[in-house]
Amino acid sequence: MTESQKVTVGIVGASGYGGVQLIKLLSEHPAIEIVYLGGDSSAGKEYADLYPHLGHLIKNKIEAIDLDEIASRCQVVFLGLPNGLACKFTPRLIEKGCKVLDLSADYRFTNLDTYSAWYKTERDDGAIASNAVYGLPELYRDQIKNSALIGCPGCYPTASLLALSPLIKQGLILPETIIIDAKSGTSGGGRQGKINLLLAEADNSLGAYGVAKHRHTPEIEQICSDLARSDVKVQFTPHLIPMVRGILSTVYATLRDPGLVTEDLITIYSAFYRSSPFVKVLPSGIYPQTKWACGTNLGYIGIEVDSRTGRVIVMSAIDNLIKGQAGQAVQCLNLMMGWAEDLGLPKLAFYP
Amino acid sequence: MTESQKVTVGIVGASGYGGVQLIKLLSEHPAIEIVYLGGDSSAGKEYADLYPHLGHLIKNKIEAIDLDEIASRCQVVFLGLPNGLACKFTPRLIEKGCKVLDLSADYRFTNLDTYSAWYKTERDDGAIASNAVYGLPELYRDQIKNSALIGCPGCYPTASLLALSPLIKQGLILPETIIIDAKSGTSGGGRQGKINLLLAEADNSLGAYGVAKHRHTPEIEQICSDLARSDVKVQFTPHLIPMVRGILSTVYATLRDPGLVTEDLITIYSAFYRSSPFVKVLPSGIYPQTKWACGTNLGYIGIEVDSRTGRVIVMSAIDNLIKGQAGQAVQCLNLMMGWAEDLGLPKLAFYP
Amino acid sequence: MTESQKVTVGIVGASGYGGVQLIKLLSEHPAIEIVYLGGDSSAGKEYADLYPHLGHLIKNKIEAIDLDEIASRCQVVFLGLPNGLACKFTPRLIEKGCKVLDLSADYRFTNLDTYSAWYKTERDDGAIASNAVYGLPELYRDQIKNSALIGCPGCYPTASLLALSPLIKQGLILPETIIIDAKSGTSGGGRQGKINLLLAEADNSLGAYGVAKHRHTPEIEQICSDLARSDVKVQFTPHLIPMVRGILSTVYATLRDPGLVTEDLITIYSAFYRSSPFVKVLPSGIYPQTKWACGTNLGYIGIEVDSRTGRVIVMSAIDNLIKGQAGQAVQCLNLMMGWAEDLGLPKLAFYP
Amino acid sequence: MTESQKVTVGIVGASGYGGVQLIKLLSEHPAIEIVYLGGDSSAGKEYADLYPHLGHLIKNKIEAIDLDEIASRCQVVFLGLPNGLACKFTPRLIEKGCKVLDLSADYRFTNLDTYSAWYKTERDDGAIASNAVYGLPELYRDQIKNSALIGCPGCYPTASLLALSPLIKQGLILPETIIIDAKSGTSGGGRQGKINLLLAEADNSLGAYGVAKHRHTPEIEQICSDLARSDVKVQFTPHLIPMVRGILSTVYATLRDPGLVTEDLITIYSAFYRSSPFVKVLPSGIYPQTKWACGTNLGYIGIEVDSRTGRVIVMSAIDNLIKGQAGQAVQCLNLMMGWAEDLGLPKLAFYP
Repeated sequence: MTESQKVTVGIVGASGYGGVQLIKLLSEHPAIEIVYLGGDSSAGKEYADLYPHLGHLIKNKIEAIDLDEIASRCQVVFLGLPNGLACKFTPRLIEKGCKVLDLSADYRFTNLDTYSAWYKTERDDGAIASNAVYGLPELYRDQIKNSALIGCPGCYPTASLLALSPLIKQGLILPETIIIDAKSGTSGGGRQGKINLLLAEADNSLGAYGVAKHRHTPEIEQICSDLARSDVKVQFTPHLIPMVRGILSTVYATLRDPGLVTEDLITIYSAFYRSSPFVKVLPSGIYPQTKWACGTNLGYIGIEVDSRTGRVIVMSAIDNLIKGQAGQAVQCLNLMMGWAEDLGLPKLAFYP
Repeated sequence: MTESQKVTVGIVGASGYGGVQLIKLLSEHPAIEIVYLGGDSSAGKEYADLYPHLGHLIKNKIEAIDLDEIASRCQVVFLGLPNGLACKFTPRLIEKGCKVLDLSADYRFTNLDTYSAWYKTERDDGAIASNAVYGLPELYRDQIKNSALIGCPGCYPTASLLALSPLIKQGLILPETIIIDAKSGTSGGGRQGKINLLLAEADNSLGAYGVAKHRHTPEIEQICSDLARSDVKVQFTPHLIPMVRGILSTVYATLRDPGLVTEDLITIYSAFYRSSPFVKVLPSGIYPQTKWACGTNLGYIGIEVDSRTGRVIVMSAIDNLIKGQAGQAVQCLNLMMGWAEDLGLPKLAFYP
Repeated sequence: MTESQKVTVGIVGASGYGGVQLIKLLSEHPAIEIVYLGGDSSAGKEYADLYPHLGHLIKNKIEAIDLDEIASRCQVVFLGLPNGLACKFTPRLIEKGCKVLDLSADYRFTNLDTYSAWYKTERDDGAIASNAVYGLPELYRDQIKNSALIGCPGCYPTASLLALSPLIKQGLILPETIIIDAKSGTSGGGRQGKINLLLAEADNSLGAYGVAKHRHTPEIEQICSDLARSDVKVQFTPHLIPMVRGILSTVYATLRDPGLVTEDLITIYSAFYRSSPFVKVLPSGIYPQTKWACGTNLGYIGIEVDSRTGRVIVMSAIDNLIKGQAGQAVQCLNLMMGWAEDLGLPKLAFYP
Repeated sequence: MTESQKVTVGIVGASGYGGVQLIKLLSEHPAIEIVYLGGDSSAGKEYADLYPHLGHLIKNKIEAIDLDEIASRCQVVFLGLPNGLACKFTPRLIEKGCKVLDLSADYRFTNLDTYSAWYKTERDDGAIASNAVYGLPELYRDQIKNSALIGCPGCYPTASLLALSPLIKQGLILPETIIIDAKSGTSGGGRQGKINLLLAEADNSLGAYGVAKHRHTPEIEQICSDLARSDVKVQFTPHLIPMVRGILSTVYATLRDPGLVTEDLITIYSAFYRSSPFVKVLPSGIYPQTKWACGTNLGYIGIEVDSRTGRVIVMSAIDNLIKGQAGQAVQCLNLMMGWAEDLGLPKLAFYP
């Protein structure tokens, strides 16, 4: 492919961790050329001032956000902005013919009332939003292929839904018993100077946060309800782990049929994810370590049935910034463009 | 107190993490004199060869394990040995008049069949074992005071039972809904050269282990059943966290009365632990960080009721090597000797 | 000692890491009562809002900084403020009869021109400053006993000077060959939301900073010059290490007498620090780990002579927030009050 | 390139960290096919039993080490064995026509007496050894191209020599003043269950080891002497850092010409490494973080001249397992095969 045949891509909100992942992934993608990096507070800076290790690669400055300018240069735009901003910018970009992949929460909800209730922001872009597709390829591959606007999933929902979907879709569990105990590295908190994310505070410690009220709850519930074709509520508890990257969701649910054994479920999961190149269902007795997924777009899934209690425990490990964010967005773009789903995406962790 | 009035104490199995905690705590205890350090593979070594930072304090050699010799010198013996050894040594020590505090699993079970089933070891010391008391002072304070043999709790059971006991004792939850998602630093794995505990492997990673089959499960169930006066089964999942010390147990259960709110439970917990100097019930909206407990004998408890789901979520944080092991043993000894329960024990973390 | 006999102490700048160390250490000190916690941006807040784990212990609010009010209530004042503020507050406190221990750089320099050159702040309190004593008890014990104003050393200078002092004082090395390669945990950067101190950035990474221009350079040089009775310049390079606490200074210098061996220097160091309860000189072949000093006021020193190169390498490990900051300040106060030098200070790390 | 055109490669000692890096790198290399994985203690095991995250990719078993069998299947053999074994296996492999890249110390020394003195192993393969080339492409690119046997450099020497070579080659420093203060993540200690490498021991701590006697000293000195055309001795001190991967070498030396400034040296370094695609010389004032190099074959170099002391300080950061080991070996292979030097090698860290 010559340079001139490459798809031109812009990243708005390039200074955060989502942005720098996209730059790394898209720089190594054979069919893409990054032509625009945009930001607000960092506009005018050299990108290498923010990330000196990229100085030899990225010569771009961060530019101010001018939607018409972006649309004139970019066929595809990734938005990596705080919640509540993408919904201001997206209508104009779509109107101008761009494909838009939004990393924020703005286009994840089919019911904007749910969004407004949890994110405390009113919305007036309902027509546009109704065309958005939830960017989890393992569930919505076909819709993604035909969409111009993707609401990319949150990191916790990605890990949790990969674990839950086969159970719910196949009706194997009692949905009201779902408990998701999730653990994330601190990069999930973004590149901002918060006291609780300092190494001095977060290292060698561990705690829950947002108990019973984290905003990823309604997102998980929406997709579970869609799969179950009925209203599902989940218990979701996130924890901050003293590590940089990685999410593990440990999911508990009561089986409808207490006679199922671990191997049955491994078979069911393997079938469910047969066409999903990034999901790896582990053999019996092997439980995923987040490190296995680090630096890749993979999701590793381990399954155990506890015959003593009648429950299934499913563990799902991803890299929160790749499969949980930027990598998944590129996976969606690959589908939107008709490319191989795994084109240009990392599939092999370095270890240890 | 003059030196001659101090209680003489021996530590068998002094070379492990439990041993070195005991040495630190007992060295700073005003009423105790360490007179014997014993070990098997390390017998004959200077203690400072194992832990050079203690070279200026501990001049003792590690001695071979000679029960009569130990009994002749020690009023109190701590046993910090692998499972299955304490039950060989304890009968003789008790017979000779020693008070024994065992850090292993050997004397935690009232039903030795349970022990044998989970630990794969037959037992012939039933008479002695039947006099052992489970060394969790917050539940069994009075029995501990009058016992000569303490089976000190495991680290996970300590954290989990501090979270669960008020709920079960007061009949507030449906016991069959109990799920314990526990997270521990790697020091819980002991001072042994296991690959999975290497920094290169365990750092920046996270995973579950022993899913549906960890040996702390029957220990937790025994105490829960005792409190509930009926047979209780729990779902218990431990995780290895990239940090040195600390356990967080996140406990889930469905409330019998969905009208209870967080503040109700904080009141109930505060009353339950009113006489327990080491348990700190946190205000509404504050969730414990393991670091707060590190280096102390404290347990911090945070509580949240989720009215959407009818569940209570209780988080309990301890230092796995202190309140979860050596400190709790000293707390028990304080009770056995009629001393203040908190004598000589650390009550204040350094932070960060 | 009854409460009424305790010395009343105030802490100005209580919200930072220095402040919270002081609160921990002074709360456990048998002869001290904390009667005032002051701050600027945090005035009016409950202390437990900043550090919830202290909620059961510290009921004080943080008060505004009113010097007359402070002087009326406190016999002793610790100042834990950014550089350039202590020199505004100290004259009034001294005048009112308070003893002052300043944790900032303001009173570390005998020549205020040096201070002004490196800290870019003019000074007009020369008379007061000339009475300040550099608060490194191992070198200036007698002066500290008779002083009312202590300029407490920086963390790097403490570690580095403990390593260097015997060499320089005894004339054993060529001073122009001194190189100090120092490594610190990130808590040295304080409790402020800086990007480079985030766990996501600083963990699993390592780098130098302030190369050839760190402000602790002139402080080290001043004391070295005082010991050498001639002008000494040092090469000082600090590095940020992915850990919370601890400093290791690795010091290199060329020996005047290439015939000296490691054991000779261990003898010299041991004699030099014979009356210093917190300095532990390690046996030959043992090098200090920062963890050994963590949570204590200890400094561990390891020494190696390289006969191939004619150099001595000295490694010095301390806890940057205790011996490197708050603990050393309390050690100074003990001397100022005529108490035992180690009264109330931690002397034993928990490990691991 | 069709599969049949790929170069067949075997890895002996595939179970360690060097082995698993090679598997990752060679799996992603477009011109290579892995056809043999060999080991001793792990022979007969599935590779995925050692590294479950590779189960979906690597279906090979680890085979016993049979040199004729290896030579019959492999055009190229990587040896990742403990020191002292490669020199037993290599002569036969070379004789059979294999190209050999040895990751151990066996073929790094031009003078086998030096090897025997430091590694306590006699050698009888002097003829073979005299044909080995030291596998640092930035210095010995042309010799590597024409060699069949590469002694791949140690991790510390790689980082240190990248920092030192321009200074020595150009005669800019006094060689007797060279001090190398090096810091490494714990993966450098290999995948073996050593107590001091446990997370519980190594995390949140820091210390030097092998002071004045580490085996990488003579290796560094050999290359420095070769560059200087005279005998050079260096002071080398390694430290263990609480992180998984990465080495930083901080190098000190006195400049011959005290008038040189930082920018002069940046110019000299940039010219020196002009044809080296993996070495990145940083702009003035920017110092390398090891994380920038993690997961890549890059070396980042930062330079500062201290006009106060007349010294230059050079900091060099690499990934110890890639540029410091397996990646560099592949870089050598690329040269040996006449491929692009950077073929198939990672050039971009994910961050953070």
